[in-house]
Amino acid sequence: MESIGFGIIGLGRIGAFHANSLQNAVSGAHLVAATVDPDHRRMLQDSGAAPCPLEEDVDSLLARRDVEAVVVASPAVAHAEHITLAAAAGKPIFSEKPLADSVPKAELAANAVLAAGVPFQIGFQRRYDRGYARARELIAAGAIGDVEMFRGMSCDRLGPIEFLRTSGGIFMDLASHDFDAARFLTGEEITEVFAVGAVLIEPELETFDDVDHAIVLLRFANGALGVVQESWRAPYGYDIRAEVHGNKGKVIAEVDEKYPTVLYDSRGKVSERHDQFVERFSDAYQAELQAFVDALHAGAPPTPGIEDALQTMRVAAAATTSRRENRWVSVSDA
Amino acid sequence: MESIGFGIIGLGRIGAFHANSLQNAVSGAHLVAATVDPDHRRMLQDSGAAPCPLEEDVDSLLARRDVEAVVVASPAVAHAEHITLAAAAGKPIFSEKPLADSVPKAELAANAVLAAGVPFQIGFQRRYDRGYARARELIAAGAIGDVEMFRGMSCDRLGPIEFLRTSGGIFMDLASHDFDAARFLTGEEITEVFAVGAVLIEPELETFDDVDHAIVLLRFANGALGVVQESWRAPYGYDIRAEVHGNKGKVIAEVDEKYPTVLYDSRGKVSERHDQFVERFSDAYQAELQAFVDALHAGAPPTPGIEDALQTMRVAAAATTSRRENRWVSVSDA
Amino acid sequence: MESIGFGIIGLGRIGAFHANSLQNAVSGAHLVAATVDPDHRRMLQDSGAAPCPLEEDVDSLLARRDVEAVVVASPAVAHAEHITLAAAAGKPIFSEKPLADSVPKAELAANAVLAAGVPFQIGFQRRYDRGYARARELIAAGAIGDVEMFRGMSCDRLGPIEFLRTSGGIFMDLASHDFDAARFLTGEEITEVFAVGAVLIEPELETFDDVDHAIVLLRFANGALGVVQESWRAPYGYDIRAEVHGNKGKVIAEVDEKYPTVLYDSRGKVSERHDQFVERFSDAYQAELQAFVDALHAGAPPTPGIEDALQTMRVAAAATTSRRENRWVSVSDA
Amino acid sequence: MESIGFGIIGLGRIGAFHANSLQNAVSGAHLVAATVDPDHRRMLQDSGAAPCPLEEDVDSLLARRDVEAVVVASPAVAHAEHITLAAAAGKPIFSEKPLADSVPKAELAANAVLAAGVPFQIGFQRRYDRGYARARELIAAGAIGDVEMFRGMSCDRLGPIEFLRTSGGIFMDLASHDFDAARFLTGEEITEVFAVGAVLIEPELETFDDVDHAIVLLRFANGALGVVQESWRAPYGYDIRAEVHGNKGKVIAEVDEKYPTVLYDSRGKVSERHDQFVERFSDAYQAELQAFVDALHAGAPPTPGIEDALQTMRVAAAATTSRRENRWVSVSDA
Repeated sequence: MESIGFGIIGLGRIGAFHANSLQNAVSGAHLVAATVDPDHRRMLQDSGAAPCPLEEDVDSLLARRDVEAVVVASPAVAHAEHITLAAAAGKPIFSEKPLADSVPKAELAANAVLAAGVPFQIGFQRRYDRGYARARELIAAGAIGDVEMFRGMSCDRLGPIEFLRTSGGIFMDLASHDFDAARFLTGEEITEVFAVGAVLIEPELETFDDVDHAIVLLRFANGALGVVQESWRAPYGYDIRAEVHGNKGKVIAEVDEKYPTVLYDSRGKVSERHDQFVERFSDAYQAELQAFVDALHAGAPPTPGIEDALQTMRVAAAATTSRRENRWVSVSDA
Repeated sequence: MESIGFGIIGLGRIGAFHANSLQNAVSGAHLVAATVDPDHRRMLQDSGAAPCPLEEDVDSLLARRDVEAVVVASPAVAHAEHITLAAAAGKPIFSEKPLADSVPKAELAANAVLAAGVPFQIGFQRRYDRGYARARELIAAGAIGDVEMFRGMSCDRLGPIEFLRTSGGIFMDLASHDFDAARFLTGEEITEVFAVGAVLIEPELETFDDVDHAIVLLRFANGALGVVQESWRAPYGYDIRAEVHGNKGKVIAEVDEKYPTVLYDSRGKVSERHDQFVERFSDAYQAELQAFVDALHAGAPPTPGIEDALQTMRVAAAATTSRRENRWVSVSDA
Repeated sequence: MESIGFGIIGLGRIGAFHANSLQNAVSGAHLVAATVDPDHRRMLQDSGAAPCPLEEDVDSLLARRDVEAVVVASPAVAHAEHITLAAAAGKPIFSEKPLADSVPKAELAANAVLAAGVPFQIGFQRRYDRGYARARELIAAGAIGDVEMFRGMSCDRLGPIEFLRTSGGIFMDLASHDFDAARFLTGEEITEVFAVGAVLIEPELETFDDVDHAIVLLRFANGALGVVQESWRAPYGYDIRAEVHGNKGKVIAEVDEKYPTVLYDSRGKVSERHDQFVERFSDAYQAELQAFVDALHAGAPPTPGIEDALQTMRVAAAATTSRRENRWVSVSDA
Repeated sequence: MESIGFGIIGLGRIGAFHANSLQNAVSGAHLVAATVDPDHRRMLQDSGAAPCPLEEDVDSLLARRDVEAVVVASPAVAHAEHITLAAAAGKPIFSEKPLADSVPKAELAANAVLAAGVPFQIGFQRRYDRGYARARELIAAGAIGDVEMFRGMSCDRLGPIEFLRTSGGIFMDLASHDFDAARFLTGEEITEVFAVGAVLIEPELETFDDVDHAIVLLRFANGALGVVQESWRAPYGYDIRAEVHGNKGKVIAEVDEKYPTVLYDSRGKVSERHDQFVERFSDAYQAELQAFVDALHAGAPPTPGIEDALQTMRVAAAATTSRRENRWVSVSDA
C-alpha cells in the first residue's frame, strides 16, 4: 500500500487541522502541498510555519502529479467551484461541508463529481465521532426498535459577521450537522421541514435575512417526527446532543465533559466543558480523514458521499425557505 | 392553627393518592369525605378499603359543613362542572389539571372561581418537584441570564382508549405539563404556537382527531423560542426533561434515576428508571397539596392559580388548533 | 389498627426530627410526650415550640401508660442507661446508634432488652435509604454474584469538641454507619479489623485519643476484604458512598446530588450537593421509624435489631483498639 | 528537528502498540527495528505482519547506529537487564513498568541509567491520561487545598498463570499504577504501607505467595492517609478510580464509559464499559511516548523518570513485605 499524496485547498483553521492529521495521524497518506488565501500565505511564509509547500492557486495545486487527492477546506462560498475543479482534474475529493452555499451550485458540483466518477466524501465528522457512531450501531442493531422521534441540538459561538455573511446561513452552517445526524442516526429520509428563527444576539444578521436561533420541525419518510434546535450562543462551551426515540427505547449521543475528572468544592460537583468543537471532535476529524484514505486504498466508495452531501443541502435549503415563508417545505422541492 | 377538613371529588388513582397524603403526610389538614364513581364505590365499600366516608354525589359532599376545602380529581371532562359547584359552595379548591376539556368551559369555571372569590390551585405538580423548583430558583436568580430558548419533553405510557377519548387530547392531557413548565421556568408568556402530530401507536386515536406523538414550536413574549416534544410511548419508563438556555448558561431539570444506586455488570453501567409518574412525583404531589393547605392557613393566594390554569388551557387549545389547521395560532386567540 | 403512643427520650436535633415524623409522616403512631435536657426544656417552653408535653425525667416519661413505645435520642453516653430503663418498663425501643459508648455497657443494654423481650430497633437509617436498600436487594438477588470486596466512605463535618468528647470516638460515631452498611450490604460478618488514624483538623482530639481521619481494613467471614474511609471534613457537603464488588459485577450506592437539576455556566456543568445528612436522609429517617411502627403492629421483630446493634459496636470497638495498638483485632475479642 | 530512530525490545502486546504509535501517531520519531521472543518472531515473519525488521537479540538491536532510543517492553523479569544493556549502549530509554521484579535489581538498573546519564522514562501512562493529568493540574493549582486522604482502585482481568509467575506480584504488576498515581496526584511521598491480601479467584497463586485481591493502607509524608484497592476481577470491564480529598474539596479521576452514548431500554439507563486497559488508555500510551520524544528533542529530562520508577518499586516491595509479614513497612526500608 503506497501512501497517497494530498493537496489541501484552503489552509485555514480546519484546513490546518487536516494538514496536521495528514502529517501526524492518518496512515496511508501524506501532505504534499496546499493553497492558502494571499494574506494568510504571506504570514505563513514569513513565520516559517507553513506545514508544506504553498501553491499559488488551486489550478497549480491540482496540476501537480503528486497531489493524488484533495481536501477542500476553503470558505463555503467557494466549495462548489473547488470541488468542480478537482473533479475535472480527476482527483478524489474530501470536502468540508456544506457542499455549496446554494442548492443549484451544490447540484452543479454534485454533477461534476458524478460525471468525473471520482471518490467523494463530505465532512460530516459527527458520523465518525465515537458517540454518534455507537448510537448509529445500536439503532441499526434494533436496540430501540422502530424510530418514532428525533431531536438534535447544536449550540456554538457566533463567528465574525463577515464569515456569517458568506456561510449560507444558520441552517447550512450549523443545522446541517444536525440534519445529517438525523438522517444518519435514524436511517430515514427527512421529507418535510418547518422552521422558525429569531435574532436574539446579533441584529446585523437581519441585514442578510439570517437568524442566530432557530428550531426546525422534521417529518421523516417513515412517519416519525423530529426537531432540531440551533443557537449561536454557547456561554458554557460547545454543546451538541442527539436523542432518538424508538418503540423499544431511546439512544442519546452528546458532547461529553472535557475531562473524565470531577471536582467537588464549595460550588458542588463540577465538570469542565469543551470550549471548541475542533477540540471536541479532533478524534472524529482524524477518523473521517482516515476513513477516506482507507476507502481510496480499498477502492470502496467513501461515506458520507455526494448523495448525502446533496440531500442535507436540500434539507438546509428547505429550512431556509420555510423560515422565510413560514410554511412547511418539502425537501424534494428545495 | 386548626386542621382543615377536605373532601375529595373523584377517588380514582390520583384522588386516592391525595387521600393518602391528607391522612398521612400533609399537616394542617384531614380527610373528611369523598365521592367516587358508582362502580368504584361498591368495590371500595365491599372491600372495606375506602379511606373515608363516601358521599352519594358531589352536591351532598359540598353540603357538608366539615368539608371546608375540596380536591377535584374527577375525569377531565367533569372538572369545570365540579369546580363551578365547589366555587358556588364557597369552598377553596385544589383541582387536578386541566381546568376543563375546552377553553369555553374553562373560562366558565374560571369565572365561577373569580366570582366566588375562593382560593384556587391547579395541580401542575412539577412546580413543586425539587428539580423543577430548583431550576426556577436558579433562573429567577439570574444564573443563566436572559432566557433565549426552552425545550420540554414528556414521554408517558398510553392510557386506555376510553380514557383518551375524554381527556381533551394530547396537548391538554400530556403537553399541558410542559406548557406550564415553560411558563413557570422561563417566567415568560407563550404567545404563539405551531404544532405537528403523528399517530404511530394507536390508530384508533384518528377517530377523534387525536395523535400519540406531537412536537410544538413556541414563541415567547420576550422573543425567545421554544419547543415541546410529547410521546405516548415510554418503553424504558416515564421520562420528562426541561432545558432552559439563557445568554449566560443553561439549566436542565429532569426525571432522575429511580434509585441513587448503580449496577455494573456484563451489560455495562446500569441505572433503573422510574416506571410511573405517580411514583416519581409522590413528593411533588404531597408538596403541592401541603402548599395549598399552607396558603389557606396563611390567607395567601395559592399558586399556580386560576390564571395559570386558564393560560395553560389556552396554550393547549392553540396547539390543538394549530395541529389541525397547520398554522401558527396565537394563544390570545385560543 | 390503633395508633401507638410514643415517648421521645432526648428532644435534641435528631429527637426533634423523629418528633416531627411521628406527628406528620409516620402512620400508625403518634407523639405523646418527651424528655429534654433542662436548658433546652426551658427554651422550648418559653418559646412555645415544644411539639408535645415535656416530662421532667425519663422515669416519669416511662411511667406514662400512654407512652407505649420510646425513641431513645439522648447523647450516646446515655443510650445504654435509657435503653435499660425502657426495657425494664416493658416498652418497645427504637434507639439511635450507637448502642452505647463502650462494649460492656452495650452488652448490659442488650441483655436488658433480651431479658425483657421487648421489640428493639437500632437507628442505622442507611438500611432504609432507597439507594442502600436497593443495593442490598440487588446483591441479595445475585446481581453481582459472590461478594469479594467492600468499600465504604463517610465524610461529614466535625461537631463541637464537647460533643466529640462523649461520642465514643470516630469509629463509634461515624464509622459505625459504614460497618453496619458493610454487614447489611454484603450479608457477611466482619471478623477482623485493622485501623489507622490521623489528626489533621482538630489537635484537641488527641487529648482523648481520638482522630479526625481514619481508614479501616476489614476481613469478612467468607474471605472477602473490605475498607472503610472516614473523615470529619466535608468541604463540599455531606458525602457517603458504598461499593460492593462481586465475581459478577459491582454495586454502588451513594449520596446523590441535592437536586435533579444541573446548571451549565462559565464554570462548567455544576450540581449542588447536600449539606447535612439529616436533610439527605430525611426520607430514610421516616422510613426506619415507619418500619419500626409497622413491625410493632404486625408483631414482627424490627430490623436492624439488638444483635445488629451489638455486632456493629464490637466492630467499632475492635477498630478503636486496633488503631491504638496498631494490630489486627478480632471482632469476637472486642 | 530530525526524527529519532527507535528500537523496541520485546514486540508483545504493549510493544506492538508502541510500534504502531511510533509509525502512525508520534511525531519526531520513527520505528527502526525490534526484538521479539523466538516463537513470536517466527509467527510474525511467516505472516508478514512484522511492523519493522526484527533483530536476533537485544545486543544486535542496540548495536545499530540508527537505533537512537529504545522502548523496553519485554517481560517484567527482564526489564532490569534490558535497561542496563541499553544504558551501557548510551541509548535513551522508555521502559514499561515495573523497573524490575525486585528492588535490588531495580537499583542496579537505576544505577546503570544514572551512571550512563541517559534520558529515562517509566511507563506510568496514567500520568498522561487526560483525566489523571487534569486532576493533578487541579490539585497543584490548589483546587482542593491541602491533601488529607487518597484512594486508588484498580480492577483488571487476571492474566495467564505463567505470566503472573514472573510479574513480580499484584503490588508490582497492578498496584504500582495506583502507587504512582498516589505520588503523582498528591505530590507527596508515601512513607509507610500496611497491606492485606486474599486469594479468591486463582488458588494457584498461593504456590508463589501471590494474591488476587489486596488492599493497602498508605501514610504520606505530610500526614495524610491513603488506601489502594486491587482486584484481578473485572466482570464488567476494566475499572480504575482515584479520589483525592483535601481540606477544600475532592477530585475524582476515573475510567469513563466506553462511549458518550447512553441507551435507555427495558433494563434502564445503560452505558457500555471499556473492556481492556490498552483500549482505554490508547491516547495516554501515545501521549507518554510523544512526551518522551519531545523531551529528547528538547534536551529536557523526561518524566516520570528513574527516581519515580525506583520509588514506586520500593512502595510495591514494601507492600509485598507488609502483606507477608503482617506489619507496617517503611518504604525507605524496602
